[in-house]
Amino acid sequence: MSETRPAHVHILGAGLIGASIGLGLSADGWYCTIDDRDPDIARLAQALGAGGQLDQEEPTIVVVAAPPAVTPQVVQESLTRWPSAVVTDVASVKVPIAEAARLVDPARYVGSHPMAGREISGATAAQGDLFKARPWVVCAEGATMSAVAEVRRIAEALQADVVEMAAGAHDVAVARVSHVPQVAASAVAAALGPLHADDVALAGQGLRDVTRIAASAPGMWADIARMNRASIHTTLDHIIGDLEDVREADDIGEALTDLIERGRLEVERIPGKHGGPTRDWVPITVIVPDEPGQLLRLLSDAESARVNVEDITIEHSPRQPVGLTTLHVLPERANELRLTLEANGWEIASS
Amino acid sequence: MSETRPAHVHILGAGLIGASIGLGLSADGWYCTIDDRDPDIARLAQALGAGGQLDQEEPTIVVVAAPPAVTPQVVQESLTRWPSAVVTDVASVKVPIAEAARLVDPARYVGSHPMAGREISGATAAQGDLFKARPWVVCAEGATMSAVAEVRRIAEALQADVVEMAAGAHDVAVARVSHVPQVAASAVAAALGPLHADDVALAGQGLRDVTRIAASAPGMWADIARMNRASIHTTLDHIIGDLEDVREADDIGEALTDLIERGRLEVERIPGKHGGPTRDWVPITVIVPDEPGQLLRLLSDAESARVNVEDITIEHSPRQPVGLTTLHVLPERANELRLTLEANGWEIASS
Repeated sequence: MSETRPAHVHILGAGLIGASIGLGLSADGWYCTIDDRDPDIARLAQALGAGGQLDQEEPTIVVVAAPPAVTPQVVQESLTRWPSAVVTDVASVKVPIAEAARLVDPARYVGSHPMAGREISGATAAQGDLFKARPWVVCAEGATMSAVAEVRRIAEALQADVVEMAAGAHDVAVARVSHVPQVAASAVAAALGPLHADDVALAGQGLRDVTRIAASAPGMWADIARMNRASIHTTLDHIIGDLEDVREADDIGEALTDLIERGRLEVERIPGKHGGPTRDWVPITVIVPDEPGQLLRLLSDAESARVNVEDITIEHSPRQPVGLTTLHVLPERANELRLTLEANGWEIASS
Repeated sequence: MSETRPAHVHILGAGLIGASIGLGLSADGWYCTIDDRDPDIARLAQALGAGGQLDQEEPTIVVVAAPPAVTPQVVQESLTRWPSAVVTDVASVKVPIAEAARLVDPARYVGSHPMAGREISGATAAQGDLFKARPWVVCAEGATMSAVAEVRRIAEALQADVVEMAAGAHDVAVARVSHVPQVAASAVAAALGPLHADDVALAGQGLRDVTRIAASAPGMWADIARMNRASIHTTLDHIIGDLEDVREADDIGEALTDLIERGRLEVERIPGKHGGPTRDWVPITVIVPDEPGQLLRLLSDAESARVNVEDITIEHSPRQPVGLTTLHVLPERANELRLTLEANGWEIASS
């Protein structure tokens, strides 16, 4: 923890997150070592440049990037084995790990949760800039200010967006913004089971959006659910209660209207650009032939109207060789864009 | 129903759907008239070119584009008032309307459900090509083949993608692909209620996707829910059952893994491009400064590598002036694109 020793980051666990931290810090000039329970994986990560091999020296900071289920134990072992190192971890649940660390030395433990979502795993998929512009939660709990500063420095070196919060608040929040939305998306997808393929083909962009995250492999979800069980239970109770209110209502229409109204108020709180509320972008939907270069031509034409495209969504038509591409733009620019696109021969489906 | 009379389409209801049908058919050379319970709205739609005013003549086809709740009655009245016209409607629930029509003249009633989603309503938002490349469900039920052919001809003239199915199967399917996903998305959003704004800011793209449709106004959902109550109940039972299984499991990890695995199998059945299974596109995420023209530059660089971009998703960073833009491309082109983008100075966040 001393500022006088040069920082030496030792990473325990050479999967996607551990190896990406090693690559990113090494590229930034930090001294990193990396290890893994599987010596082959450790050697692979070292060969990729994620860090060297630890000798006898004590690291200044230990980053535990092990699977969530073993993280509490590895954090405890690390605090014991290296009695003056700051220890952090990267698991997506923070309370059980803080509790484990408290039994050894809470002053040197700082929880981290780098929220870099990725659908593939393993050291070979690692990227030093995996964390750039992504939230990185830091849970100080009982740690010293200098321990917190050292962990923040790692997150900042990786150009992450540091957010300090209490471990308990973190776990409650991720249950509602991440863990239970995954459960609900999988349940909506599973409910397609009784339908024939032709019926599933009636799916529109709404269903595709709701179920996108249901396409991922279970991966670490079992561990995460076990570690955040209490907050997941509370959130599931909330959602099941709302669904049952609609299910049991004398007037299902009134109950659904009430739920939609309450949901809308919350969606407005999900940040859009730059922490502000979601802008009232206007959608302009264009029929785009499914041919190379058409999307580029569309954006070039938008650019010629000097309209900045804030967001794009593409809906592929199930049976026709065209896609519906929606450009989201500021309201005051929408009419200009519409006119320009029409002048350039685009068919606007809705605007 | 005679092929010898020139087709005359009379549209009852001059909202978004009715006026769009009138505009599209009129543009295609059909003879259309349009009316609305509100004479001002009828005059507006007529002024916009969605059709003329009905005199004494009997239309060959009547399109009931009224709100869902009054559609059964308006369909009955139309079958009675015009005893040789084919009558169709556009409501998103089909069984209650088919049942109402059966009491008058099932041979002349054909259900339609043009699945053109749109977040705004009203005649002024109407577009003749609203239905292009969108599914248009036709429910023949007890109708004659010539009645079905006339309604199909309307959908085809509007360049929709016609799908014939039974009314009962339609209502079961839309409960699972549309109605209950809306309920679930709103419930996930409503469950953000207890969180502070800083906690909601931890939301990632997963939550944004799941809750996107929860941002819409309740609109006609109350009517739709009332009319499709039985199928919505069955689907809600399915989803509540799955959520309760996770909630009550001795091992929440095992229960969630099971649900995720079941959901994944179903997501694979949601069609991607051109009716085939979703392609295994490879995502390449690029850090894009939030400045005008950057997206165009990115796509130009992708084009220079002769890589067709199959899909785009943009994730705006809550606190930084950059966005993470993900290009989805065919696996065999991914490496080429990555190299080209890097050569052009793009920072690839994950690939």
